[in-house]
Amino acid sequence: MPDQRPRLRDTHIRLAHGNGGRMMHELVDALFVSALANPDLDSHADAVALPVPAGRELMVTTDGFTVQPLEFPGGNIGSLAVHGVVNDLAVSGATPRFLTLAVILEEGLEIALLERVIASLARAARECGVAVVAGDTKVVGRGDCDGMYITVTGIGFRAPGLGLGFSAIVPGDRILVSGPIGDHGTAVLLAREEFGLRGEMFSDAASVFAQAQALMAVPGLRFMRDPTRGGLATVLHEIARATALGMHLSESAIPVRIAVQSVCELLGFDPLYLACEGRIVAVVAAEAAATALHALRELAPGAAMIGAVRAGPPLVVLDTAFGGQRVLDELDDDPLPRIC
Amino acid sequence: MPDQRPRLRDTHIRLAHGNGGRMMHELVDALFVSALANPDLDSHADAVALPVPAGRELMVTTDGFTVQPLEFPGGNIGSLAVHGVVNDLAVSGATPRFLTLAVILEEGLEIALLERVIASLARAARECGVAVVAGDTKVVGRGDCDGMYITVTGIGFRAPGLGLGFSAIVPGDRILVSGPIGDHGTAVLLAREEFGLRGEMFSDAASVFAQAQALMAVPGLRFMRDPTRGGLATVLHEIARATALGMHLSESAIPVRIAVQSVCELLGFDPLYLACEGRIVAVVAAEAAATALHALRELAPGAAMIGAVRAGPPLVVLDTAFGGQRVLDELDDDPLPRIC
Repeated sequence: MPDQRPRLRDTHIRLAHGNGGRMMHELVDALFVSALANPDLDSHADAVALPVPAGRELMVTTDGFTVQPLEFPGGNIGSLAVHGVVNDLAVSGATPRFLTLAVILEEGLEIALLERVIASLARAARECGVAVVAGDTKVVGRGDCDGMYITVTGIGFRAPGLGLGFSAIVPGDRILVSGPIGDHGTAVLLAREEFGLRGEMFSDAASVFAQAQALMAVPGLRFMRDPTRGGLATVLHEIARATALGMHLSESAIPVRIAVQSVCELLGFDPLYLACEGRIVAVVAAEAAATALHALRELAPGAAMIGAVRAGPPLVVLDTAFGGQRVLDELDDDPLPRIC
Repeated sequence: MPDQRPRLRDTHIRLAHGNGGRMMHELVDALFVSALANPDLDSHADAVALPVPAGRELMVTTDGFTVQPLEFPGGNIGSLAVHGVVNDLAVSGATPRFLTLAVILEEGLEIALLERVIASLARAARECGVAVVAGDTKVVGRGDCDGMYITVTGIGFRAPGLGLGFSAIVPGDRILVSGPIGDHGTAVLLAREEFGLRGEMFSDAASVFAQAQALMAVPGLRFMRDPTRGGLATVLHEIARATALGMHLSESAIPVRIAVQSVCELLGFDPLYLACEGRIVAVVAAEAAATALHALRELAPGAAMIGAVRAGPPLVVLDTAFGGQRVLDELDDDPLPRIC
């Protein structure tokens, strides 16, 4: 069947594609509406009406994406934006339903690249069961943006009274992670080829919704978060700060791919601080840990129990493979900017 | 009373302010949370739960802001972002309630400037009765952004069955505008000082919520929109395209400030295509036009009836002051990029 989508005459973005007039409408119709079409999307409305399921809480989150390069093994800025926002809703216990999409495009951006990004955003949205319901397009001049930035706001719904959160965490709880850490950060790093390093490392970027739902079926689940910017260590610092409890990790239990470990050793990074985009960190009651791990492994075979919550100073402490202890500092400088 | 807000040691944005770790938390606490604090904002959550009033439709809109310069007479990118999104909800018949805020900051941005922008965003939000409930901060390197970009998503609620929209418009309806057009575009243009022009022209950026509510009380209201990018002419082209009806304007009835007219004549712009950020274009039934205009003038003394909808080709036609007719083209090139 021939492709019936409207075609653009231009091959690169022009300032006029952001002017609110004819060229912007053509761009929006040719690229965005054709890829993202769904009953709730109305590209000609100022705001859209969305259905709210009875007896559910409305959940909202927003995230800007500035990843560089725009395309990397395992994803691009479009699919990443969907997965990032879907995951923020999923770990809050919500079922993601709607997204809004605001793009800032640089004059001169190749339209074929934009088309790939939007196609992959649309595919990710379909796979996650979310509909893009509103959007906005701005164009800035050459040199005022690095290709494109995307901001996605996610809307979902959850049952009230889940009781998840920092305040549910108590000493003795166990800490789980749903798979190897640092894949996304390493994949993006290698895609930059800036350290003379190359490699076929894939980002873990994906929806964690199914995993989050599996964990929510386990009585004793306290808290979930996806370890993105700042990685596993940063999530644990957030928990330590919010609960005033200690986070104790067993280094040998933390799953890290050999490729990630090697790149980190070469460049002086620590995988504990590298971003994942398809993992969950979960805190569960001690007595529920085995059940939770089992439930998680049905979907994520690489899941592991990596530590425990203890009374005491709000530090993140690593029991090293050599029998020592290392206190993990909070991330200070940015070792790896623009990984999401 | 001494200012108790946390203080930042830096005077300019660093990449580490976007790393997800300590410095980002400090920036978020010192600037954003302190200015935007409200019961629904939780800067430590992945997603926030929001109350939905019974029997109301959930309304959502999103908008990216890239205005240059960041500050201009009558507003800055922060207040503009609030007014822009509040207005998109208001003209949809919704009561704006919540905003999410995603900022992209350029390394080296002066923190004092960011503080002014957020203070003014917070003030505008308070005045509009909306709460910022979620946010995200990204930092990109020098030269990868022009100071800062802001994306705001707005959430509001409206009574179902309002019956507003393109499909309600019929031949004979009247077209109203709530005040002089082109003020915002002209103010931003002059603030750039790039044509050797200077002047004390103020943006009209403001909430149109009260005006929208006043119009909604008038039986016979068909449609409202705020004429931002592309100005009045572009809104009328959108209506013409969606309804296949002609939009007929009387040039002498369209309110334009002398300063706007003068700048346009000097630089070859047309005020009909210049952005407003605090106006409504409304379409009302002929028999309701006087009532609607009266209601509007209570709040916006500069409001005017400027034309009518007619059967016939979907063109935007201007009856000129000299007795002639001019068909207004759709905006093609972007005469004035980055005015919002």
